[in-house]
Amino acid sequence: MNSRITGSVRIVGAGLLGTSIGLALTKQGVDVAITDASPASAALAIDYGAGRAPHAQDEPAIIVVCVPPDITASLVAAELAAFPNAVVTDVASVKSSVLEALTAQNADLSRYVGSHPMAGRERGGAISGRADLFIGRTWVISPNQESSQTAVNAVEDLAHALGAATAKVAATDHDRAVALVSHFPQIVASLTAGQLVEADAADVQLAGQGIRDTIRIAASDPALWVQILSANAGDVVQLLKSLSRELDSVIAALEDPQAPGALATISKALDRGNQGVSRLPGKHGAQAAAYSIVTVMIDDKPGELARLLTEVGEVGVNLEEIKLEHSPSSAVGLVELFVVPSIEPHLSAELSNRGWRLV
Amino acid sequence: MNSRITGSVRIVGAGLLGTSIGLALTKQGVDVAITDASPASAALAIDYGAGRAPHAQDEPAIIVVCVPPDITASLVAAELAAFPNAVVTDVASVKSSVLEALTAQNADLSRYVGSHPMAGRERGGAISGRADLFIGRTWVISPNQESSQTAVNAVEDLAHALGAATAKVAATDHDRAVALVSHFPQIVASLTAGQLVEADAADVQLAGQGIRDTIRIAASDPALWVQILSANAGDVVQLLKSLSRELDSVIAALEDPQAPGALATISKALDRGNQGVSRLPGKHGAQAAAYSIVTVMIDDKPGELARLLTEVGEVGVNLEEIKLEHSPSSAVGLVELFVVPSIEPHLSAELSNRGWRLV
Repeated sequence: MNSRITGSVRIVGAGLLGTSIGLALTKQGVDVAITDASPASAALAIDYGAGRAPHAQDEPAIIVVCVPPDITASLVAAELAAFPNAVVTDVASVKSSVLEALTAQNADLSRYVGSHPMAGRERGGAISGRADLFIGRTWVISPNQESSQTAVNAVEDLAHALGAATAKVAATDHDRAVALVSHFPQIVASLTAGQLVEADAADVQLAGQGIRDTIRIAASDPALWVQILSANAGDVVQLLKSLSRELDSVIAALEDPQAPGALATISKALDRGNQGVSRLPGKHGAQAAAYSIVTVMIDDKPGELARLLTEVGEVGVNLEEIKLEHSPSSAVGLVELFVVPSIEPHLSAELSNRGWRLV
Repeated sequence: MNSRITGSVRIVGAGLLGTSIGLALTKQGVDVAITDASPASAALAIDYGAGRAPHAQDEPAIIVVCVPPDITASLVAAELAAFPNAVVTDVASVKSSVLEALTAQNADLSRYVGSHPMAGRERGGAISGRADLFIGRTWVISPNQESSQTAVNAVEDLAHALGAATAKVAATDHDRAVALVSHFPQIVASLTAGQLVEADAADVQLAGQGIRDTIRIAASDPALWVQILSANAGDVVQLLKSLSRELDSVIAALEDPQAPGALATISKALDRGNQGVSRLPGKHGAQAAAYSIVTVMIDDKPGELARLLTEVGEVGVNLEEIKLEHSPSSAVGLVELFVVPSIEPHLSAELSNRGWRLV
C-alpha cells in the first residue's frame, strides 16, 4: 500500500499513540523506526509490527515524539539536535508548555510543529495500539511563529496518512480549548466520583445511568493526568475558579432556599446547564440536534439486539446513537435508539407492528 | 389481562409518571380514574388510554399522587381526607419533606406510604407516558412509623403490577442516597455545562465524548429540578460543601504545581475518582466489572450496525453495553462493544475473521 509519506519515520515512545502510529505507517509500507526509554516497551511494539529498531545511519524525514507531557520538550529538543534535517512533532495533549520549554532551550523551531491527535482510549500502552486509532479523528496541528511551511506540510501529511482530519490551532488557543472540553471536566468528574468513596454501599446501589455518565472519565489514569493538568494549570484554574464561585453561590442558596433570590440562583444555574449542553457539537461536526429517542425492551440474551437492529436497518433508519441499559433486577434490557425527530413516528410504528415492546 | 391490583385506582397528576401508571394499569383491566389540576392535561391522558375521568361516587382502593414535589404533601393530605378508606402513595423524588409536611398537618399516616420509582425520561408530560416505563426499574417504598402493613403491601403490589422491583428504604435514607447519586451530580453537571455558555465556538468544537457524558444530565428540566433540590437541600449541601473544599484544594495545588505536596493533592483527587467509579453497581446489580471493549469501525449508513450485531449474535456473545460514536469529520462510525473480559479475544478474532475492521 502506498502512503502519502515519503522517507523514513522515527517514533520516540512506544505507548498507545506511538505504537498506533507505527502500526498504521508500517502497514502502508513506510520505513518506521520506533524506540522507547524502556527497551521492553520498544521490543513489544516492534513485535506487534509497529516498526523496527533504530539504526545508527537512520535519516528520518519526520520524527514523532510520543511520550508523557513532562518529558516531551526535552525529547523534542534532543531529536531536533540529533537529526538536523528532520521535521519533529509531538503528540502531547498540552502545547504551550512544550513550546515555551523549546524556546527557552533555543531549539530549532523552524523544524518543529506541535500537534495533538484527539484520539485515545482509557487503556494505554503498546498492547492497546491500533492502526486505525486516528481514522476520522481531529488532529490538531499547532505551528509556531518559526515553523517552516515544509514542516507544517509534513505534519499535516502525517495526520492525513493516518486517516485524521487536521485543524490548525495555535498552542495557546489549543490549550485554552482542551482546558475547557477535556481537562476541566476531568477534574470535575474525579472530584464528583470521589464523593462515592466513603458513601454507604446501600446508597451507591441506587445509582443509575445519570451519575454513571457524569463520572465515567474519572476512571482515567491518574499518573498521566497529573502531568496534563499541571502542564495546563493556568487555563484550568480559571475554569475551576469560575466553577467554585458558582458552586458557592448555589450552596448559599440551598442553605436557605426560602431566602429572597435563592430559588432564582438555583434555577439560573440549571438553566445555564441547559444552554451549555446545547452548545456541544453534534454528529459529523454539526450543531447537536435534539434527537428523538425510541426505547425498546428486549430480552437480555445474545442475538436480541442484533435482531432489533436488523429490523431497524430494514426500516431504512440510520441511528444517531444507541444506548443499552440492563435492568438492575431483571433479565430484560432497554435499548435507546436515537434518531432525527422526523423519523421517530415511522420507526416507532414499524417496530410496534413487528412486535417489539416500545417503552 | 388480570392484574395484581383489585379495586379501583385513582391517579392525581397526569404527567409522565401518572400517565404511565394509568396506561399500564388500564391495559391490565384495572379501573383507573385520572385527574389533573389542568383539565387539558387530564383530557390528554384519558385520550391516550391512561384511565377515565373521576366520578363523585369513586371509592379507590389506592391513590397515587404524581405531582411536582412542592405540592405533593398538600395533595396527599387532601386525598387522605377525601377518601378515608384509601391507601395513598406519591412518587416524588424526595421523601422526608413530604412526610414532615404530612406529619405537621396531622394527616392519617397509617394509610400513607411514600414511594419513588427510579424511572424517568428527559422528556416529561403525558405525551411521553409509556405503559412499560417501570419494567425492571427499582421502585423505592418508604413506609413511615405509622404505615399499616396493609398500606405497605398495597403500594408494593402496585409497584410489582407495573413490573418494578421494590426496595424498602426509610425516607431519610432514601433522601441521603438520591442526594448522592442523583441530586448532587445534577448540580455538578449543570454548573460544569454552564462554563460552556460563554466559551469560544472554536473551543467548544473540540469537545469529544468525555465532556459530552459528563454534562449529559445538565439537559434536564430546570423547573422540576429547582423543586427537587430545594426539597432535599440539607443532604445535597453536605456533598456540595465537601466538593467545594476539595475543589479549592485542587485549585490551590494547580496555582503552584511546583509547591511541596501540590502534585500529591492533584494525584490523590484523581485516584479517589478511580475508586469512586469502581463503587458503581454493575449490570443486574452486580459490582461493576472491568469490561473489555472491542471497537469496530463501520460505515455510517443504515444496516451496518445491524449487520455487525447479527454477527456478534452468531458468535454467541452477549453485550454488556454498546456505544456508538460518529466521527466528526468523516462517514465512518465507531462502535464500542463492551463484553466480559474472558470473551474479548474470541469476539475480536471472530470479527476480524469476518472482515470487520477492529480499531
